[in-house]
Amino acid sequence: MEEKCGVVGISLEEGDAALPTYYAMYALQHRGQEGAGIVTHDGFQQHSEKGLGLVAEVFDDDDVEHLPGRASIGHLRYPTAGEIDERSCHPYTVTSKRGSLALAHNGTLVNTDEVRAEFEERGHTFSTNSDTEVMVHELASNLVEDGLLDAIKRTMKRIRGAYSLTLMHDDRVVGVRDPLGVRPLCIGKLDDGYILASESVAIDVLDGELVRDVRPGEVVVLDEDGGGFESHRLFDEVPAHCFFEYVYFSRPDSTIDDRLVYDARREMGRLLYENHGVETDIVSPVPDSGRAFASGYAEAGDLEYSEALMKNRYVGRTFIMPTQDARETAVRLKLNTMDSNIEGKSVTLIDDSIVRGTTSRQLVKLLRESGASEVHFRVGSPPIVAPCYLGIDMASRDELMASDKDVDEIRDEIGADSLEYLNVDDISEALDMPRGEMCTGCVTGSYPVDVEGETCERTKDGSRAGAD
Amino acid sequence: MEEKCGVVGISLEEGDAALPTYYAMYALQHRGQEGAGIVTHDGFQQHSEKGLGLVAEVFDDDDVEHLPGRASIGHLRYPTAGEIDERSCHPYTVTSKRGSLALAHNGTLVNTDEVRAEFEERGHTFSTNSDTEVMVHELASNLVEDGLLDAIKRTMKRIRGAYSLTLMHDDRVVGVRDPLGVRPLCIGKLDDGYILASESVAIDVLDGELVRDVRPGEVVVLDEDGGGFESHRLFDEVPAHCFFEYVYFSRPDSTIDDRLVYDARREMGRLLYENHGVETDIVSPVPDSGRAFASGYAEAGDLEYSEALMKNRYVGRTFIMPTQDARETAVRLKLNTMDSNIEGKSVTLIDDSIVRGTTSRQLVKLLRESGASEVHFRVGSPPIVAPCYLGIDMASRDELMASDKDVDEIRDEIGADSLEYLNVDDISEALDMPRGEMCTGCVTGSYPVDVEGETCERTKDGSRAGAD
Amino acid sequence: MEEKCGVVGISLEEGDAALPTYYAMYALQHRGQEGAGIVTHDGFQQHSEKGLGLVAEVFDDDDVEHLPGRASIGHLRYPTAGEIDERSCHPYTVTSKRGSLALAHNGTLVNTDEVRAEFEERGHTFSTNSDTEVMVHELASNLVEDGLLDAIKRTMKRIRGAYSLTLMHDDRVVGVRDPLGVRPLCIGKLDDGYILASESVAIDVLDGELVRDVRPGEVVVLDEDGGGFESHRLFDEVPAHCFFEYVYFSRPDSTIDDRLVYDARREMGRLLYENHGVETDIVSPVPDSGRAFASGYAEAGDLEYSEALMKNRYVGRTFIMPTQDARETAVRLKLNTMDSNIEGKSVTLIDDSIVRGTTSRQLVKLLRESGASEVHFRVGSPPIVAPCYLGIDMASRDELMASDKDVDEIRDEIGADSLEYLNVDDISEALDMPRGEMCTGCVTGSYPVDVEGETCERTKDGSRAGAD
Amino acid sequence: MEEKCGVVGISLEEGDAALPTYYAMYALQHRGQEGAGIVTHDGFQQHSEKGLGLVAEVFDDDDVEHLPGRASIGHLRYPTAGEIDERSCHPYTVTSKRGSLALAHNGTLVNTDEVRAEFEERGHTFSTNSDTEVMVHELASNLVEDGLLDAIKRTMKRIRGAYSLTLMHDDRVVGVRDPLGVRPLCIGKLDDGYILASESVAIDVLDGELVRDVRPGEVVVLDEDGGGFESHRLFDEVPAHCFFEYVYFSRPDSTIDDRLVYDARREMGRLLYENHGVETDIVSPVPDSGRAFASGYAEAGDLEYSEALMKNRYVGRTFIMPTQDARETAVRLKLNTMDSNIEGKSVTLIDDSIVRGTTSRQLVKLLRESGASEVHFRVGSPPIVAPCYLGIDMASRDELMASDKDVDEIRDEIGADSLEYLNVDDISEALDMPRGEMCTGCVTGSYPVDVEGETCERTKDGSRAGAD
Repeated sequence: MEEKCGVVGISLEEGDAALPTYYAMYALQHRGQEGAGIVTHDGFQQHSEKGLGLVAEVFDDDDVEHLPGRASIGHLRYPTAGEIDERSCHPYTVTSKRGSLALAHNGTLVNTDEVRAEFEERGHTFSTNSDTEVMVHELASNLVEDGLLDAIKRTMKRIRGAYSLTLMHDDRVVGVRDPLGVRPLCIGKLDDGYILASESVAIDVLDGELVRDVRPGEVVVLDEDGGGFESHRLFDEVPAHCFFEYVYFSRPDSTIDDRLVYDARREMGRLLYENHGVETDIVSPVPDSGRAFASGYAEAGDLEYSEALMKNRYVGRTFIMPTQDARETAVRLKLNTMDSNIEGKSVTLIDDSIVRGTTSRQLVKLLRESGASEVHFRVGSPPIVAPCYLGIDMASRDELMASDKDVDEIRDEIGADSLEYLNVDDISEALDMPRGEMCTGCVTGSYPVDVEGETCERTKDGSRAGAD
Repeated sequence: MEEKCGVVGISLEEGDAALPTYYAMYALQHRGQEGAGIVTHDGFQQHSEKGLGLVAEVFDDDDVEHLPGRASIGHLRYPTAGEIDERSCHPYTVTSKRGSLALAHNGTLVNTDEVRAEFEERGHTFSTNSDTEVMVHELASNLVEDGLLDAIKRTMKRIRGAYSLTLMHDDRVVGVRDPLGVRPLCIGKLDDGYILASESVAIDVLDGELVRDVRPGEVVVLDEDGGGFESHRLFDEVPAHCFFEYVYFSRPDSTIDDRLVYDARREMGRLLYENHGVETDIVSPVPDSGRAFASGYAEAGDLEYSEALMKNRYVGRTFIMPTQDARETAVRLKLNTMDSNIEGKSVTLIDDSIVRGTTSRQLVKLLRESGASEVHFRVGSPPIVAPCYLGIDMASRDELMASDKDVDEIRDEIGADSLEYLNVDDISEALDMPRGEMCTGCVTGSYPVDVEGETCERTKDGSRAGAD
Repeated sequence: MEEKCGVVGISLEEGDAALPTYYAMYALQHRGQEGAGIVTHDGFQQHSEKGLGLVAEVFDDDDVEHLPGRASIGHLRYPTAGEIDERSCHPYTVTSKRGSLALAHNGTLVNTDEVRAEFEERGHTFSTNSDTEVMVHELASNLVEDGLLDAIKRTMKRIRGAYSLTLMHDDRVVGVRDPLGVRPLCIGKLDDGYILASESVAIDVLDGELVRDVRPGEVVVLDEDGGGFESHRLFDEVPAHCFFEYVYFSRPDSTIDDRLVYDARREMGRLLYENHGVETDIVSPVPDSGRAFASGYAEAGDLEYSEALMKNRYVGRTFIMPTQDARETAVRLKLNTMDSNIEGKSVTLIDDSIVRGTTSRQLVKLLRESGASEVHFRVGSPPIVAPCYLGIDMASRDELMASDKDVDEIRDEIGADSLEYLNVDDISEALDMPRGEMCTGCVTGSYPVDVEGETCERTKDGSRAGAD
Repeated sequence: MEEKCGVVGISLEEGDAALPTYYAMYALQHRGQEGAGIVTHDGFQQHSEKGLGLVAEVFDDDDVEHLPGRASIGHLRYPTAGEIDERSCHPYTVTSKRGSLALAHNGTLVNTDEVRAEFEERGHTFSTNSDTEVMVHELASNLVEDGLLDAIKRTMKRIRGAYSLTLMHDDRVVGVRDPLGVRPLCIGKLDDGYILASESVAIDVLDGELVRDVRPGEVVVLDEDGGGFESHRLFDEVPAHCFFEYVYFSRPDSTIDDRLVYDARREMGRLLYENHGVETDIVSPVPDSGRAFASGYAEAGDLEYSEALMKNRYVGRTFIMPTQDARETAVRLKLNTMDSNIEGKSVTLIDDSIVRGTTSRQLVKLLRESGASEVHFRVGSPPIVAPCYLGIDMASRDELMASDKDVDEIRDEIGADSLEYLNVDDISEALDMPRGEMCTGCVTGSYPVDVEGETCERTKDGSRAGAD
């Protein structure tokens, strides 16, 4: 289960913005490992460099030095279906009647098929299948008649879905967050300029200061002299924040809406103990994702926290896959058991979520083989019953273990002695966020936008049915 | 002085067209070494593979196997000014209301700035600076209303310049040659299909049979069953064939308009002797380009043909450049003298053309240092006095040695005892082609199309002023 | 501070040993990231593949398939001074009068200069500066007259220093551990054969069973039918185990001499609290190395364990280095602070060791900038006062912060409110290992072997002065 | 049919020798395309860089800059049987009691198996199968007792076969040519030093002056101040020069023993006409190897020289191989016919030699398909009836078309109307070299050294049986 894409935008008073953009992307690497791109503007023209791989693989000193300009945007790409080549790497750049445009997008749009068809009707062509290209056509078309802000507003009315954008119009850097605020986007102050980024860790790495999150439906235009920014709240709807950003996607050291993600996870761990605590010899996380949850759980129950599973820190994107008859090896390449810590003990294993359930089953099996007397499984989020259509490539519905099994069946399937999840209200409590302001599509099957074949919890006028 | 781009299009009765396209491109490698791309269509969708480098570097068996479909076009790219990345590699592919389009282009267009501006006015955006992208927008726009043939005709009316195209509309392969027929394009019959290619050597390599050249202003649509082709002569103007295709660009073993290029060059060599023959001990070519000319010259004069200069056949695109104080080395890395063949002898050196003149001067110097008693220089084409705007990246005007020097001055500059060129009428005679049917822009400064700041030899109605 | 090299040897009943060797090396990747090599023997000849980089970068399926044979050894290389090329990658392979030899070495030899000189006197030449090559010459020379076991014994008498070896004589796989047992080496049973490896995690990854550690001075010859092994304890001296294997080098999930490394570290953390506990709001590890220590410390003191520093898990071997005036960035690229967890709190930071002290100082500074009211530093090992000559490339003496500073000075240097270390007796207690059976060279400056310019704690006859 | 290896050695008065060595190797690229290596010595230590591929692929500016020292040797490697990795790339470097040695070898040794066995008996080990490594062991062993010159002399007595060597003992550069002088080696004077090289073209590229060939059995020691060289003629036997260096291996612009290779080939062409001339419409070479022969032949007979076959000048080392049913394509990828030059004409095709005969047969077939009325084949050397054991990897005996067929049978096999070869006496005449001073092993089956299973034409005392 992985999040799709991270974005950055920087406007400095002077100097080149490419290197800080690179560092900011380095800090956001977890949001996309497939490709990376930076586009700068030096006042006269765009300069861009993109490639497949990690940020540190795509760029070297030379590349960054050849990207002059005090304005810059960056994009990290997570793999999605379809052809993967350098052309698909963002930021997406074009020239138009009104100058150059560059656009970096985190999220997924839901009505681009119909918009695309209308453009094709008018003779437009498309180079990729990317929904971002459709958004660029819309924006550029609107720019023929309108100024930038109006063109963005028309685009936001026309295009629906999740989008946190950084865009550059000539050398003006702009941040846009969709009216639902599904994906995060925040503003930071640097020594000599401002930054827009998917998460606050990108600001920290530059020793900057988090100003605040961009608000749902807000357009933030960074000043060209690096001295500040203008805010335009173009839409003010009930938001639908993705709670999975807190559970899994965002870095634990990121702060979203004044909430440190690590703390949110520890709080979820505490609630998990309070609602579903069980006697146990040791509490152990699934590394690394379950660690904060396990720490909160153990603390709440005054239980011994001890790692039963150890991750090989050199596990990378590639290794020779074991053949069928050695499937065990595949798990062991990544995770090893610490047998003398497990033997004869009851173990409570904590993870942030269960998606397909395959790994969970293998881990329970490993622990039993290592001599655990009992294995209890606790999960820091609700069962995932439906796909995400708003920016996460989790899995298809039939791959989701909880799509057709209840908790008892899942417990049996993964072979645990007991299994408990947090529910949506627990999440709401832990995040101190009204249930109606979260997107809970993947755990309820009811989405904040129209998705073909799925339930929409919003009324026709755009407000949400169950909104508080 | 290098030609820009080669194109191929193949339609087979059955089987996959990618591998023969690859071989055809291999035979046309001299037309573009910077990048290569193949796009196929399998009846359902396009498949494409592009990259920087030689054909054999860009493609391996795997790549070609992953390009299914009985229809295919290919493109070889020669470097031009501006950013060079994989995105600039052709064929250019898009999807449109009327399905997918792929386009491979050899030539240069002259009025794309104004066409592009009109498109931008209508909200279109452009991803590259390439004039080919403008042509694609025009074609796709026309396709919204018209059928393929009408759309192509409207495009040919709107876009001016030199273009030999292979294009694919879904899985239909089409060849288009501009009304002036500047760049070559020919049709070949294969065992189980038809091929369109820049030169006949691409047909030879597949053991096919040259049918004929595509005519200026003609559109050739290959049958989908590989059984034949339809011809549509949409324009019938006085042509303006590039004579440099015969002099330098095309392979000597190519046949253009029933004329073997090697023979044309030998004939030019003969005329060179007849008009400007000189007593000499040996006649020697500048390898490899002057070889056919020298052979014709020696034969006409019954003179001894003997190579005075030897080329290092491993000279590639890269080697460590000598520093300034060892400039001599740079020439010697490529060409060596055969001193015992030169010492005390008068040598007549034959080349196809002189562009910047730098190499010519160095070669004369090398021969003198090797003991040549006299060095005469003979050139198989007229002095190049102006740039090419129709598909060749020769040099800018001020780099051209003949742009501001007469023959005597050039002779002194390169240090030869005598220097003579063929004139335009000689070329016309050697090629048996009326002077008015050739483009002679680079040797007269007068062009068959409007080029800003240059003379056009055509009248307003499109016919040529000086046409026979 | 990094350990040098990991070794593997596998002998199967049937099938190919290369793939399990690859997996075992994958599990030992932390012992050497510079290069990797595998040599197999198929009964007729050796096959080898080596390269620079991580195991997963050096080998792919093809490589491993081209390494047939039921016998195999592997080597992971950590960078040391001197030229680094593929030739320096182990295993080292030669042919000799008695067949082929391959040798993988973990450790450092101390008397190879004199042995090498003697060989040169007899006309031998050397291809590398590696001490391993000298050992190979010695072994091959001894093999001319002696059988394998006697030849190894003579080699062990002649060569002094630290060496855990896996070697292959034709297709016979042998493990050798030096008489002091400085570096670890263990034996594991697989489904259909036996394995020798630097650490037990290599056995776990193959779902094998740890049999026991190879004893100091022991030679273990794996049976050719994979059915067992012969043990030859050729030397029985007082050992000198490197305690840093427990503190830092080995993986926490490895078991050395029946002791799980993770537990040893937690125990050291507990002792650290018992001897040097301090009141604090939170106990926080330096990730990842300090985690087990911090967990033991917090538990012993019933203190709140909470991570104050978060590591960027994508930090790799390369990234663009910030320039001087942005030095802060370099640390922040790797570690970020979780401010809301730190602000106004007293923090006790736990690490396994302090080598140069640079990072420690930066971390204390980061915590203070994040608002920590107090920063206490606790270290799970004694101050490092001298270099290692037996297999670790820590740092030169003048780079070691503790080589010329006492604890108070170091505390001031790194800016902590208090600083405490474990002492050697604590280590001895935590490991339940007599002080006299450990090598404590780096923390006492007194070594178990003669090193030019350093104190040797052994008497002339080879027994150790201070041995219990 | 390809020659194995080129060597270079340079000693300058001052400055760095690596760059001129690189250029010299660039000029000798035809002698080995598989790998390249340069070793320099800066007065203190060796520096080396080796790799697989062409010189220009292996080295870039950086590499050469990191090779300091006024002394340098270089080696070009041609592929031979067995494992090919960077380790097999020369120059071979070792350290010994008497300092460092580096050795670059062109040729093949015939008695290394027995020498190697003796070394192994004394405990030596070998890292490769290369016969050069054996020579290095011999040389280093001799150096323990003797000075350099005596050590070389003892090595030359002990090791038999073909060897033109450049070697470096510390920073002293030495050239050695075997007593038979099988492979070429020459001396050149540079502006500020001296060079040893396989062929004189390496001197030309540096604008140096060919001094003379190194004599058979001569050792040439370049002065350390670049001011001259010492000559030591250690052996003075009847030579056995490889005549194929003139026929095929050497570059046409090289001068061997005062004879320009191009001229030698033209002379062979002339003799070919005089002895075996035939009426014909055109004389055409197999490009590029037959060109000088064809030019001499045409001139001698006053026949029309015209190229019937054209080579694709981009044919490189790799391309996608056509499958079986398209075998024709493989030839056409490399060579195309110029049909209008061939149709209805009798063609005499000239090549330097016929080895396997496969290509010859295909070319005759191509010409007939292009309409040639007659195809006569003339070959500038005798039929190759036996393998070369002295430095050329031609083919095994049963692959040689002439090993079991007479000229008439070969003519029928390749489908020519007539076929004629030069004989050994013609070669002797053309080269003005006594038959007894040539190695004619491959065309007579009788060799100048003992080769197991072959005839030796030398008497026991080392003089040659049939020597003039």
